Amino acid sequence: MTPEVTPETTRVAIIAGAGALPAALAPCLDRPLICALDGYAPQGLTPDMTFRVERLVPFFAALEQAGVNTVTFAGAVQRPRLDPALFDPATAQLVPRLFAAMQAGDDATLRAVIALFEEAGFAITGTADIAPDLVPAAGLLTGALTDQDEKDADRAAVITQALGAVDVGQGCVVAQGLCLATEALPGTDAMLAQVADLPAALRPDPGRGRGLFYKAAKPGQDLRIDLPTLGPATVAAVARAGLGGIAWQAGHVICLDRPAMIAAAERAGLFLWAR
Amino acid sequence: MTPEVTPETTRVAIIAGAGALPAALAPCLDRPLICALDGYAPQGLTPDMTFRVERLVPFFAALEQAGVNTVTFAGAVQRPRLDPALFDPATAQLVPRLFAAMQAGDDATLRAVIALFEEAGFAITGTADIAPDLVPAAGLLTGALTDQDEKDADRAAVITQALGAVDVGQGCVVAQGLCLATEALPGTDAMLAQVADLPAALRPDPGRGRGLFYKAAKPGQDLRIDLPTLGPATVAAVARAGLGGIAWQAGHVICLDRPAMIAAAERAGLFLWAR
Repeated sequence: MTPEVTPETTRVAIIAGAGALPAALAPCLDRPLICALDGYAPQGLTPDMTFRVERLVPFFAALEQAGVNTVTFAGAVQRPRLDPALFDPATAQLVPRLFAAMQAGDDATLRAVIALFEEAGFAITGTADIAPDLVPAAGLLTGALTDQDEKDADRAAVITQALGAVDVGQGCVVAQGLCLATEALPGTDAMLAQVADLPAALRPDPGRGRGLFYKAAKPGQDLRIDLPTLGPATVAAVARAGLGGIAWQAGHVICLDRPAMIAAAERAGLFLWAR
Repeated sequence: MTPEVTPETTRVAIIAGAGALPAALAPCLDRPLICALDGYAPQGLTPDMTFRVERLVPFFAALEQAGVNTVTFAGAVQRPRLDPALFDPATAQLVPRLFAAMQAGDDATLRAVIALFEEAGFAITGTADIAPDLVPAAGLLTGALTDQDEKDADRAAVITQALGAVDVGQGCVVAQGLCLATEALPGTDAMLAQVADLPAALRPDPGRGRGLFYKAAKPGQDLRIDLPTLGPATVAAVARAGLGGIAWQAGHVICLDRPAMIAAAERAGLFLWAR
């Protein structure tokens, strides 16, 4: 006999993608079920269950069987290549919906995936609910801001909102009002590496303001899923890019290992600013 | 005695920046005065006059002296480093205005520069007026379009408009609905080189649509100045990036050496589409 699942019992499945977030969330939950996409082992966690997108409906059944009624999505998942031979009949029915969403961009894909889990009866919970400490509220975490930094953050916020509104990216780099780079599919690391490689002739004089990396959720983004994430590696990449610090939308961005981020920022002389 | 300059006499100064546009415009004009920023020799032309931004007001006087009443801006100019010691008193008065514009981005800088020339009594004329053949109207110049290309161009136009509205860039790369790159300060060549270097895992399956480079003027852009420009080198960079073609906003983009662009596109199997 399996134990009866009452509505009072919450068991959360962590759908674990790349990065350190799944392992940071697991200790905050009671008996979480760790689930990973087949072929993508989560960092620092052993999956209880693996699944494939082609077999999403059987995966829903397995979650229910394990007593899961709530799901959280943690960490990025690269859009997987799908193998038509692996679809079960029920998941195959979902293909037109999934493909249409994938055509329309990452946000649309995530919204479609959330909707499928919800239609299957699962509640969705987000990082800010499970571990509020991971999502800093407004404040300067370390360093000092110049007037130019504040202006650059204003401009970067406007640019990031424009990019997010067309579902392109969640960040950009601005120095002295100039947009040195914007984030698209290749992501933050690629963008910061481009800035690091930028010829000096194309950069404004660093003596008058080093510029910043800005990160924000997309306008209208479902905050239960896919919040933008910063971590110690981001701080290192921002230092290599020769910028003065990181600013982000308070309450909408995950900071992984905040003490390590602050220590790295202090060593590199950078500011960290939730605004 | 110098010949009297009557209002009927139009003498155009070409403010020649980088690239092949100044040399393409010069033969379309009667006795153009070729002007170049000190230190930036124009390609294929010998300047009649060089000038420095720090001495803009004396430059206005020299233009007038040479019988110039109309100015056209041709080719990109990198934002020059200014030497405070070189300012003449009259140009120094303009510094707060110029610097405020430079802070607000490239568009604002160009608008401010246009306004200064107009206030000094010069008319501004654009490439489309001088050489309409350089600015193609709507039509497919070469190649064939798939349904996916048309969808990608629609999405790219929306993204480019959003980027342009916040004065960031004038182009992006879209493949199968996904935005692979957006243009910021480093420019088109840097963006297309990034796409060429993109790991295969981050690209959508090229068998289902190779994607395109899209170029447009910024919304509300002054079409007399700084139209985005494509040329044979752009076609080569798009081919190296593994894309299927180039689409652009008809009537708003300069095509330098159209026959060479079409020949290069045909060799590489790319489409060229003014839409």
